[in-house]
Amino acid sequence: MEFFNGSITSPKGFLASGVYCGLRMNKTKKDLGLIYCKEGCISAALYTTNVVKGAPIAVTQKHLENNMAKAVIVNSGNANTCNADGFEKAVKMCTAVAKELNINASDVIVASTGVIGQPLNIGAIESGIPLLASSLSKEGGRDVAEAIMTTDTCKKELAIKFELDGKEIIISAIAKGSGMINPNMATLLSFVTTDINISKPLLEKAFRDAVENSLNRVSVDGDTSTNDMAVIMASGLSGNNIIEAENEGYKLFYEALMLIMSGISKMVAKDGEGATKLIICELTGAVDTESAKILSKSVIMSNLVKAAMFGKDANWGRILCALGYSGVMFDETKVGASFVSKNGRVDVCKNGASVDFDEEYALAVLDADEITIVVDMGSGAGRAFAYGCDLTYDYVKINGSYRT
Amino acid sequence: MEFFNGSITSPKGFLASGVYCGLRMNKTKKDLGLIYCKEGCISAALYTTNVVKGAPIAVTQKHLENNMAKAVIVNSGNANTCNADGFEKAVKMCTAVAKELNINASDVIVASTGVIGQPLNIGAIESGIPLLASSLSKEGGRDVAEAIMTTDTCKKELAIKFELDGKEIIISAIAKGSGMINPNMATLLSFVTTDINISKPLLEKAFRDAVENSLNRVSVDGDTSTNDMAVIMASGLSGNNIIEAENEGYKLFYEALMLIMSGISKMVAKDGEGATKLIICELTGAVDTESAKILSKSVIMSNLVKAAMFGKDANWGRILCALGYSGVMFDETKVGASFVSKNGRVDVCKNGASVDFDEEYALAVLDADEITIVVDMGSGAGRAFAYGCDLTYDYVKINGSYRT
Repeated sequence: MEFFNGSITSPKGFLASGVYCGLRMNKTKKDLGLIYCKEGCISAALYTTNVVKGAPIAVTQKHLENNMAKAVIVNSGNANTCNADGFEKAVKMCTAVAKELNINASDVIVASTGVIGQPLNIGAIESGIPLLASSLSKEGGRDVAEAIMTTDTCKKELAIKFELDGKEIIISAIAKGSGMINPNMATLLSFVTTDINISKPLLEKAFRDAVENSLNRVSVDGDTSTNDMAVIMASGLSGNNIIEAENEGYKLFYEALMLIMSGISKMVAKDGEGATKLIICELTGAVDTESAKILSKSVIMSNLVKAAMFGKDANWGRILCALGYSGVMFDETKVGASFVSKNGRVDVCKNGASVDFDEEYALAVLDADEITIVVDMGSGAGRAFAYGCDLTYDYVKINGSYRT
Repeated sequence: MEFFNGSITSPKGFLASGVYCGLRMNKTKKDLGLIYCKEGCISAALYTTNVVKGAPIAVTQKHLENNMAKAVIVNSGNANTCNADGFEKAVKMCTAVAKELNINASDVIVASTGVIGQPLNIGAIESGIPLLASSLSKEGGRDVAEAIMTTDTCKKELAIKFELDGKEIIISAIAKGSGMINPNMATLLSFVTTDINISKPLLEKAFRDAVENSLNRVSVDGDTSTNDMAVIMASGLSGNNIIEAENEGYKLFYEALMLIMSGISKMVAKDGEGATKLIICELTGAVDTESAKILSKSVIMSNLVKAAMFGKDANWGRILCALGYSGVMFDETKVGASFVSKNGRVDVCKNGASVDFDEEYALAVLDADEITIVVDMGSGAGRAFAYGCDLTYDYVKINGSYRT
């Protein structure tokens, strides 16, 4: 099992493309992307829990009722959300793609990301789709990864391969993250392709479990977007014997999928809007897993903790405070906390109270671009991770003028 | 009923003082305060809902079991929280005050605010208390208001007077706010004095209701502090007939108390760490009051909404988004939203979709230091306010280096 320098088109059967169609001011930035598998895929998806949902979500949910898909059309620059004609336009995006590819519109998944409440320029999209379809290629994987970016500062793509039944299996993922990120289910936009041969129910189960333990553990700013969507498509072309039970093959697949999904989650957290650091909270000793999830997420969501991490300030009292208002009950006199990075480890709290530590050394530990806040609740076997980032001047700058 | 330029000592029977005792680096900033009413007061208090509570909270809760108090001792610069010897030191603060004033330690309320998890310098406090006691005066009201400040940029004090039974009644309040502010009950620190003559149960009821509709509607950063405490003390010296039922006198008192508490809440929100603007969400049309409270607070807590307000960006999609993830169900096609300030009103959303508005005019409306986000859910009679502030570079700056 190893990561390699692949793209969303690395699994057998997938092509992709990305173009600039005119949705964004910046003409050098692609804003429309397409992923295509002509053989068809079984597919599973998870969506935002926000009551206000983007129109593309409703259309995709409908098209995935049969868990089958052949293509994904996705744009950045406009979320197509809170628009009276949003549903109709999302359908049009699917129809235009279906026509070019000579498939059914119901085999097309549609997703949008960008500003909310501004009419979608469907004309630009429709005029871009023929070029998008004609430029589909293996190399296009890089282009679609770029086309889904908004304020992301880097492309997020990962690929992993492993062997099963003597066949090479590949899983690839791309994601678009940055702001309005506190997924409760999927996240942001994330598309995962694989050529594994697996049953629909097991693909869905593996994906749901993996997302719950990866993308759903990320929070950039506590704002759950209206357009979050995570989709997996499996072409089945690798030639392994179909996985229809939770056997060794399934476990191998799940292990690889978790590596991909937690990798992509860390990329999303680290590239949170304005972020300079990836902050991981590794929490053990909670009474159960559910408590551990709530507690760890409360820590990485605290603006005060996030700002302290930006300032390299070992202000652990804010960690205790964030645990305390999470809604989970616990005995504070059992809690311990440490900061860990590539520069070392500093224990800052034991039994809910301060331990002596060297401030200079703590500063050195916090002077890294990946920091793990290790918390031991001292009360049980519950354990969870959460992924976030620091709060910086640039987060404020980016979000003070997003539309302009 | 009118506001006047009073202080915490304006109601009959109250004296106060504030000194620098050595808890803070900055010697020009008072860090220890005392409020005293030798006749004794009936008293009510509300405390943080954080599981991790400062030691002073536990001591004050114990001392207020009989709802009687004569003095408040309060320090800034150290929260006396997450310290193994915190309880003992909080008791010592009360004992030292009791000795100087020749009262019982159980008649002393104690509160602390500042950094969490660093040992409290009890020696400095004990050595400051004699001076504090000997300098008690009517003028000292200003000094205690200063002594409780941490990163606050201005003193927060308000006084109001009205007539009842031919007697003048005064209510005064001071507060300390700024960061780690998302009270769920009290907030921050707030001390309220009055000379009204009222029964214990009705004082408690009025105070609980008023705090619920004022301080509990404030959020600066979503972080519920470990040390929040709001206390009211009534000397009964104004000479009105004791209020023992929810009669006209009670209603008048409650009205005045609400004016004081919402006034002080706005001051706290407006002086949120790094804030440049007071943001009020006035939400109507929810199915009930509870929903209205949750929805309005979700709006003013959204980092994305807060950053947009800082940037004067009429990005109303973020308001819909924040409503959508609040946990309350609603029909988005009935929602309307507007921005209102002294510069005018701009409607930006109707029936859950965009309405045409002039961007230049919207910018002018948002170019004010108090902005009301008016939201109509269109579904019922539920109504609530929430108070917050914008998210700025300075919030990050202040909280990136709080301890240093």
